[in-house]
Amino acid sequence: MPELRTDWLTGRTVLVAENRANRPNEFADELRSSNGEPASAAGAIASTVSDCPFCAGNESRTPPAVYTANDPSGRWRLRVVPNMYPAVGSEADQPTVHPLAEPAVGAHEVIIEAARHIDRMSLLSVTELQDVFVAYAERLRHWRSDGRFNYGLIFKNQGARAGASLAHVHSQLMALPGIPPAVERELQRAEQDFAEQGSCAYCRLIARELSDGRRIVVDRDGYVAFCPFASLQPCEVWLLPKAHEEAFEQMRSREFFQRLAGVLHAVIRKLESLVPGAAYNMLLRTAPWQSADGSGWHWRIELLPRLTSFAGLELATGVHINPLPPESAAGRLRDA
Amino acid sequence: MPELRTDWLTGRTVLVAENRANRPNEFADELRSSNGEPASAAGAIASTVSDCPFCAGNESRTPPAVYTANDPSGRWRLRVVPNMYPAVGSEADQPTVHPLAEPAVGAHEVIIEAARHIDRMSLLSVTELQDVFVAYAERLRHWRSDGRFNYGLIFKNQGARAGASLAHVHSQLMALPGIPPAVERELQRAEQDFAEQGSCAYCRLIARELSDGRRIVVDRDGYVAFCPFASLQPCEVWLLPKAHEEAFEQMRSREFFQRLAGVLHAVIRKLESLVPGAAYNMLLRTAPWQSADGSGWHWRIELLPRLTSFAGLELATGVHINPLPPESAAGRLRDA
Repeated sequence: MPELRTDWLTGRTVLVAENRANRPNEFADELRSSNGEPASAAGAIASTVSDCPFCAGNESRTPPAVYTANDPSGRWRLRVVPNMYPAVGSEADQPTVHPLAEPAVGAHEVIIEAARHIDRMSLLSVTELQDVFVAYAERLRHWRSDGRFNYGLIFKNQGARAGASLAHVHSQLMALPGIPPAVERELQRAEQDFAEQGSCAYCRLIARELSDGRRIVVDRDGYVAFCPFASLQPCEVWLLPKAHEEAFEQMRSREFFQRLAGVLHAVIRKLESLVPGAAYNMLLRTAPWQSADGSGWHWRIELLPRLTSFAGLELATGVHINPLPPESAAGRLRDA
Repeated sequence: MPELRTDWLTGRTVLVAENRANRPNEFADELRSSNGEPASAAGAIASTVSDCPFCAGNESRTPPAVYTANDPSGRWRLRVVPNMYPAVGSEADQPTVHPLAEPAVGAHEVIIEAARHIDRMSLLSVTELQDVFVAYAERLRHWRSDGRFNYGLIFKNQGARAGASLAHVHSQLMALPGIPPAVERELQRAEQDFAEQGSCAYCRLIARELSDGRRIVVDRDGYVAFCPFASLQPCEVWLLPKAHEEAFEQMRSREFFQRLAGVLHAVIRKLESLVPGAAYNMLLRTAPWQSADGSGWHWRIELLPRLTSFAGLELATGVHINPLPPESAAGRLRDA
């Protein structure tokens, strides 16, 4: 059973999940390589269907699907399966005995975004990307209505530097009983600001960014994408709906997913055109389910390219170094 | 002038330091490689004296030394130089205009730990490591007495995955006017605990770890090294003096540095024997200079191997996944 441990002095929380060590890692050679050892001549990424547990034909190598989207001929083109190596357990089978540890209960699923072996989100068609968003909303609604969980997160690790262990295009969902500390801090600030100002902090942020203009990457079809003022990394992009929408999973209309897929696809293509082969994380931050009424929140997607390493300063102080001002990054992305 | 920017919603702080983009990076090929592009055949690490700005003979390629340690023949064996590409500026030449930005003022130095071209701390002799600690204490005292700064940090990035851009063995010092947010949180907890309990929180942590025993790696010569209960990464090690010592730079006796060098050398050798070629960060956390009387703090060294990547979950929630329980890690390190 994975365990959630807290360090009471530093306040950090860690999921100690021994079963994660058993995951296959297609990038293992690559990672050894960046530690100074030679990479294997065979290359790092499984590129054959027979090796990849996420490819069509290898369904028996994952748990049964809990959700699928099919093409007109009835073949699946997207599957959601429970994670074989979950970082959280489905229920606490035994209590932990340490006062700073608790059983890490939650759900952990994998969204396999295509049946064919492709390794980048940009290689999905806009229609396929639309299916992906529909699946996100469906699975978030599923776990929200389960009742045991107060927070749902979708994230994607693309490329070994972003933490991926398999190359086949996929993302992950986690549902957790508590609101994680970093999210809690943002929620508190946003709700307090909403109470003081009487309007959504994110709506006002969008208005300020549009009025300033220097950090805007894309502004169309009801969405705005910009490089945040305090970007952690070069070319970080936030994408938000311009209308006030609290929870991503509240959205149901076909048109909503269509427009979103179109805009995100455009942003990703710009990013990959500017930094070919970039590793990045994508985070979908929907409103915490336990927030009073969710009105302090406004959902967003974050694209976080991994172009510089988190080093000693970041680890010691929480202060990040970004060598590319977001104003320059946005200009380059607009032109890409 | 680098700028310190704060995101008022997420609370994160970022040093936007454009000049950092001009740094030479010996690992650039390697990093491209782990993004999926081929590494150059030439290999990533400058291994010839003529290429390396930190090697003896190339002193003109760095600013003049502000501190040196010499061998008996008068040749330097350790140099401290101002960082050519500082993440902070020496003084604010112009005010910033954004309410969430301020000029990032501070000192940023490089400690070149050997005159010969070696790329791992473990290749230093114990005597050389002792010189390194003497230099740390000397430079921390220098900046502390400068009066403009309230926090001093020493860190080392070893290997590309840990954020190093040059291979030649070195570490860095930063002195900052304010206490960084992550340090401030720990300081508040530690001081509150000291006030409530009437004794140092870290001294009691050491006593608990020694009594439990499962996470102890080394216990000798007045120091204890253990894998912390909420280790962020496999084989993370904290090293603390068993006696209550608040600030590292208060220590001056030759014997102090000798014993510390011996113990740290032993721990590093264990780590490198268990994980050959490991990339890691080393952090020296001394008491913040601005703390009331420093009595809430107790200095420590953290060794943080970079064996897993920070991925989407970590970035979104601040919760880390560690697949190796520290009890197992400590057992393996004891045996290594």
